[in-house]
Formats: sequence, C-alpha cells, structure tokens
Amino acid sequence: MTSRVPLIDKKALAQYISSLAPIGAQPEGGVTRLAFTAEERMLQAKVAAWLTELGGQVNRDPIGNLIARFPGQDNSLPAVALGSHLDSVPQGGNYDGIVGVVAAIAAIRAIVQHNLSTRHPLEVIAFVGEESSRFGIATLGSKIMTGCGNFDHWSQLEDASGITLQAAAKEAGAELGNMAAARRRPEEFKAFLELHIEQGRVLEEAETTIGVVTAVAAPTRWHITMVGRADHSGTTPMALRRDALAAAAEFILAVERHGWIESPHQSVATVGTLALKPGAMNVIPGQVDLGLDIRGIDTASIKRLEQAIAEDLYNICQRRQIRPKLQKLSAEQPVQLNDNIIATIETVCKQLAVTCLRMPSGAGHDAMNMAKITPTGLIFIPCQGGISHNPAEKAAIDDIALGAEVLLHTALKLAQLN
Amino acid sequence: MTSRVPLIDKKALAQYISSLAPIGAQPEGGVTRLAFTAEERMLQAKVAAWLTELGGQVNRDPIGNLIARFPGQDNSLPAVALGSHLDSVPQGGNYDGIVGVVAAIAAIRAIVQHNLSTRHPLEVIAFVGEESSRFGIATLGSKIMTGCGNFDHWSQLEDASGITLQAAAKEAGAELGNMAAARRRPEEFKAFLELHIEQGRVLEEAETTIGVVTAVAAPTRWHITMVGRADHSGTTPMALRRDALAAAAEFILAVERHGWIESPHQSVATVGTLALKPGAMNVIPGQVDLGLDIRGIDTASIKRLEQAIAEDLYNICQRRQIRPKLQKLSAEQPVQLNDNIIATIETVCKQLAVTCLRMPSGAGHDAMNMAKITPTGLIFIPCQGGISHNPAEKAAIDDIALGAEVLLHTALKLAQLN
Repeated sequence: MTSRVPLIDKKALAQYISSLAPIGAQPEGGVTRLAFTAEERMLQAKVAAWLTELGGQVNRDPIGNLIARFPGQDNSLPAVALGSHLDSVPQGGNYDGIVGVVAAIAAIRAIVQHNLSTRHPLEVIAFVGEESSRFGIATLGSKIMTGCGNFDHWSQLEDASGITLQAAAKEAGAELGNMAAARRRPEEFKAFLELHIEQGRVLEEAETTIGVVTAVAAPTRWHITMVGRADHSGTTPMALRRDALAAAAEFILAVERHGWIESPHQSVATVGTLALKPGAMNVIPGQVDLGLDIRGIDTASIKRLEQAIAEDLYNICQRRQIRPKLQKLSAEQPVQLNDNIIATIETVCKQLAVTCLRMPSGAGHDAMNMAKITPTGLIFIPCQGGISHNPAEKAAIDDIALGAEVLLHTALKLAQLN
Repeated sequence: MTSRVPLIDKKALAQYISSLAPIGAQPEGGVTRLAFTAEERMLQAKVAAWLTELGGQVNRDPIGNLIARFPGQDNSLPAVALGSHLDSVPQGGNYDGIVGVVAAIAAIRAIVQHNLSTRHPLEVIAFVGEESSRFGIATLGSKIMTGCGNFDHWSQLEDASGITLQAAAKEAGAELGNMAAARRRPEEFKAFLELHIEQGRVLEEAETTIGVVTAVAAPTRWHITMVGRADHSGTTPMALRRDALAAAAEFILAVERHGWIESPHQSVATVGTLALKPGAMNVIPGQVDLGLDIRGIDTASIKRLEQAIAEDLYNICQRRQIRPKLQKLSAEQPVQLNDNIIATIETVCKQLAVTCLRMPSGAGHDAMNMAKITPTGLIFIPCQGGISHNPAEKAAIDDIALGAEVLLHTALKLAQLN
C-alpha cells in the first residue's frame, strides 16, 4: 500500500524529538551523549518506553543495543529492521542518529494507529555507541551485532578520563561474558533500513528532500611528511631554497585537482591537517606534516586517486629536492548497498510523488555494518547547511516526517503489507 | 699599503675565539650569552683586557657598548671604527658577532705588531645586546649609539623571567640616567666597518669567501587570514567546498612565484607560519592563518612584491569564495650601505687577490644603524651550510682570517696609513 496521504503522525514525531532534547543538553549549546554513559541510557529508557507502549517486545543485547520486536503475520519469517543510534559527539546536535530512531518509532506508530499488518515481523534497533568520540571506535554496537569487530580487542581502550571501554560498557549494563550472543545471523533479517541526516550539503544544493544512498564511502588515511631545509628567510635567496611548505602547497593543489578528476566517480580527497616546523616568521619551513583523507565508493577510483596523488608527491618532491614520506594510516573498503532496496526506496518516492537523489554517503553509519549481513537501505534527509556534529545541527520537521514516510512505506513493501 | 703576505696573525685570532668559547657554553651544545647578562660581561672583560694590552683606551658607554680607542697621527680627525657584537641567541654559535669583534682586535694587533701607523684614530666597538632574543629589540646597543631608538620606550620590556630591560641594563652596569651620552655624533666617525658571518648560503654556493654587502634588507611582515568553510571531508563533494587550505596553497605558491620574479632585485618572500582550523583529518579546513615575511633592499621591488601578492590573494579568494584579511604587522626600510666603502673593500680584495661578491644582507646587523651616522661597510664571510643561531654554526678559521685581512686593509685605507 502506498498513499499520498501521510501515515506518519508529524506531531508525535516532533514530540519524540523534543522530549529527547533535554537529555545531555549543554549550557553552552548542543547535546553531549557519549557512548555507554548515563545520557545514552536515559535516551534508551525513553525510547524503550515508547516502543513498549506501541506493543514491542523490548530487549537489550549483551553490548547494549536496544531491540524492539513487533510480530508479523508469520513470525518464522526474517525481520525487517529499522533503526539508527542515540549517542552523540560532545556538544553534538539533536538530529544525528536520533531522527533514524524516532522515525522508526513513528513508522511503527503509524502501523499501529492505522491497523496495518505485515507478513514479516518488524524490529526497531537503537544501536549503542555509534560515534567514535569516546573510545575511538565508530559504530561499535552494529559492529558487534554483525561480527565486524571483536569486543575483546577494544575492551582496554580508554576514554579521556582513563575509563576503559570494558568498564564503561559494564557500568552501562553490558554482559561482558556473553558478548558473542549479541551477534545476529543473516537469516534473522530480511532487510535493514536506516534514516539519517545527510551531514553534507548535496541535498540542500539540489533542493531535494530524500537521498537514496547507493554506497557508504570508506576513508583511506595517509600521513605525509615533506622534509626540505629550514633556512633564514632573509638570507636565503629564492634560488637556494628547499621550502617544504611551498612543496606542500603544490601537493595540496594536486590532491584537490585529483579529487576533481575523480568527482564523477564520487570520490573526494582532502588535506585536513598541516603542521610545519619550525614555524617562525623568519625561517623557511623545513618540514611539513600533512593528513590526507581519501573517500569514495568506487575502489577503482580510490586506487587511481591514491596512485595519482602519490605520483605527484614524488614528482613535486624530486623537482624541489624535498624528501617525502608517505604512510598509510588506515584503509577501509567502501560498502555497496543493496540494489533492490535502492530500487524499492525509489519506487516508494515515486508513489509518494517525492523527488529523490541517488548519492553516496561520505560518512560511516550503522547501515554499512548491517549491509554485511542483510540487504540494507540508507535514506538521507537534509540538515541545514550540511552542519552536523555541532550545536547548530538542524533538520526541518517536515523533512524528518517525509523521511519517516519513505522509511515506513519502504518497510511496508519489504515486510509485505497485506 | 696592501700585501699578499697576510698581516693578520691567524694563530692569535684562533686563540681569541677559542678563549671566548667556554663562556656561556651549554651542556647540550651551543652558547647562551644573552644581552645584559653575566656572560656578556665576561666576554666584554676578556675583550677589554686584550684591547687594553694592545694599547687601547677602553671605556663602556652608558648603555654598555664597549669602546676601545687607538690614537692616530692626528687625533682631531674622525675615527675609523671596527666592530660587531658579543651576545648570542639562546644556544647560539660561537661565530655570530664574535668574529667581527675578534677580527677587529686582530686587525689592531697586526697594526701594533707591524708598527703601522694611521692618520685617523681607530676604534674597536663591541656592541651590547644585538640579538632580540631576550627583550625583543634587536641591535639595541647600536640603536642607542646612533639615536635610532629611545631607551626609555623599551625600558619596561620584560624577558622570559619577568626582568625588565631597565633592571637588566642597570645590573649590567648601564648608566640609566645618562643614556643620552651614549649617542655618538656623525662628526666623530670617518667610517664604520663590520665583519660578520653571512648566516646564509650565498657565499658557500658561489665558492667565494668575501661578501661585500651593498644594503641591509628590512623585513615587512604580514598576517593573512583566509576564511572558507569547515565541512565534513566525506560528505562534501569537491564542487561544494570552500577549502581555506587549498586557497592558502595557491597563495603560498603565488608568494613564491612573486619572490622569484623579484629575485633579480634581491627581494625574497616567505610564508613561514601556517595554522589551520579546525585541523582534523575528517574536516575540510575552514580557516587558515599565515605569516608572510617580505625582504629586500630595493623599496620599489618590495612594493611591487607586496602589491602583486595582495592582488593574487584577492583574486584567489574571490574565485574560491574565501574571505581574506590582510594585516601589515611591521614594515622597516632597507638600508643602503656606502658606495665608496663598497668600492674600497672591492679594491682591497683585488689587491689581496681575493675574489669577492656583492650581495645584500637579508638579516639586520649593527652596521645598518651605524650607516645612519657614518659611511659604513659590512663584510661577510661564509658559515658552513649557512647555519646560524644554532649550536652547529661554524666558520672556518681560514675564512675568518681572510675576512680580518680584508677588514684590516680596508681600515688602513680609510684611516690613511702613512
């Protein structure tokens, strides 16, 4: 069933959001709801109460993911799961993660209110610890659920105040000895759907409300050192210089140029950090250290980018008598999302007479882990100015409601509404 | 008189240097002999003893400059003065300043040993507080002597440990109430000559021992801010970026290019500092702050450089939707040295069969202040690799001796050897 009359109760949706807003609210603005803290548990408690009220069977798995199950007509069938996360970065916004959880609840609410019934059971999942801010590991809850990570490897990681992940998770009620039981099998799911704010400006620039994510980009990160020669800025003529910063400037522009060249393949390349030595007005920079972040959804494009950038680095450095050092810090694989789900979301948009845009996700999400075990869809809605991880983060309620409507109708199609 | 047989006693010269070396020597290497410290006074005491032994009448002026006077045949004539400074930067080298003072002493020693006699009286001056390291004011002693600065304006400046310049100078024996008496009148001098290490690599690259300085460059300093937009490096396509660092990279290369264009006029331009915000791997730089240092000896060339750089800044920023801010921090005037003295030094080199090179001084020296009151010459000798203000600073004794020889013969010509 699809309809141009909205099924989502926008008022209720807005109330869910505003009712969560005070949790972890900071006097200077924004919300701080770090992984495995009391704030995250308070959010879970509210969400659990709403889900219980809607008839869900609510549990927490051993790592702390909140899972609410809603029966279908045939509970032997795999579930269609909807969800996102509740935690935030320090002084983050009230939309990142939150909109995906409340939209899922609003979707269930619509099903209940309109007496709809699906063949497949439904689940709402609020993942724990999606942000890497506290322990340096992103999408922790979904990694544990999908077997993309081993809790024991990370248990001794410490937060800024020296608390280990193990201690924090235990304090938050995780069953440390039973972590393997958090792992879900592919046969338990028919599909996973996540609604999330875009955290970028593509939708806003395109004046489109719904982004249909085709793939989640993975960052490859490089540390680059360029060593020239620190000389007196007054006594060293231009011709005798081995200026590491001028070489770095050429390199930064090469990175940008190759990013442009690979733009049609939706790859991006960014120099986000730069430190120079000695860093004095009267000394020609002798050394520059750069941080390079390359992302894309097309591994061939990423590879071309890396090769072109490395080649330019060596050419620039050779010409300028600069000693380069190139060190790969991390490399993750992009995750392709499921074509059938993408097509289903697009069909829903068409039926709802909503324009949508296929796009990659430049940031990681729980959906990328869920995609490892089940066909997964990720729906984006705009956030103002693309601003996220910031107190100024803002998504319009109309956009959230429309996103929830698309989420609901996609879930209904996948769970086979009768 | 000129001769290809050296008059300078190289052994004595080497002994002067090695005898000063332990003063302020640091366990980690280098020497620390800050302005108005016990170390500077110990150096002065040694130097004063040598000058007295050579028949000089040694005094300290009210700011603390050490002045030794050697009579000529006609003491009503203005003096030909030779000198440099004794103080160093923290963990500096044993040649910066020192070679100019010991070469002057070695020149007097040669005159005494060879029973030479000049019409004009001679002076050896060891300037106090040439380095800006302690109180932020460079060439303090020669500024006071030449009226280029007012002690009272600076007296409350504090060093890193909170000691005022006033207190430090008083402790060092300066006559604070009598500072005006430190000022010398133009009619007291016929000329001033300074020998100094180059602190650059021009002579080394040219395989030339003697540099004849034509002018002392003055730094003009700018603070430049470029404000773009901090966006997520993963979620922001290349086309939607306002990357402050990429704009800064273009600017850094423009600075370098214009430096090259003005190279024939011996101007240089350097970006020596760069700070970016927020400075994270996953964020496109939103703001970059740069420090720009422009130096030259040709004011028209400096002006062209400044204009071309500013024009490029605005063009780059307009094209990239970046907000630029350009703030001039300081601007000093280059000092032209005296043509007759330059020609005299060149003649001496020719007569000594020594190759020499006309060159600008990119760094400031006491000579630039003395040039305001008397015809002044500045002679450079190489230092290894151009390294200075560093424990690794090194000048070869053969080069110092040759520089002293040129200094001596130039002084003899100016003071009219009979």
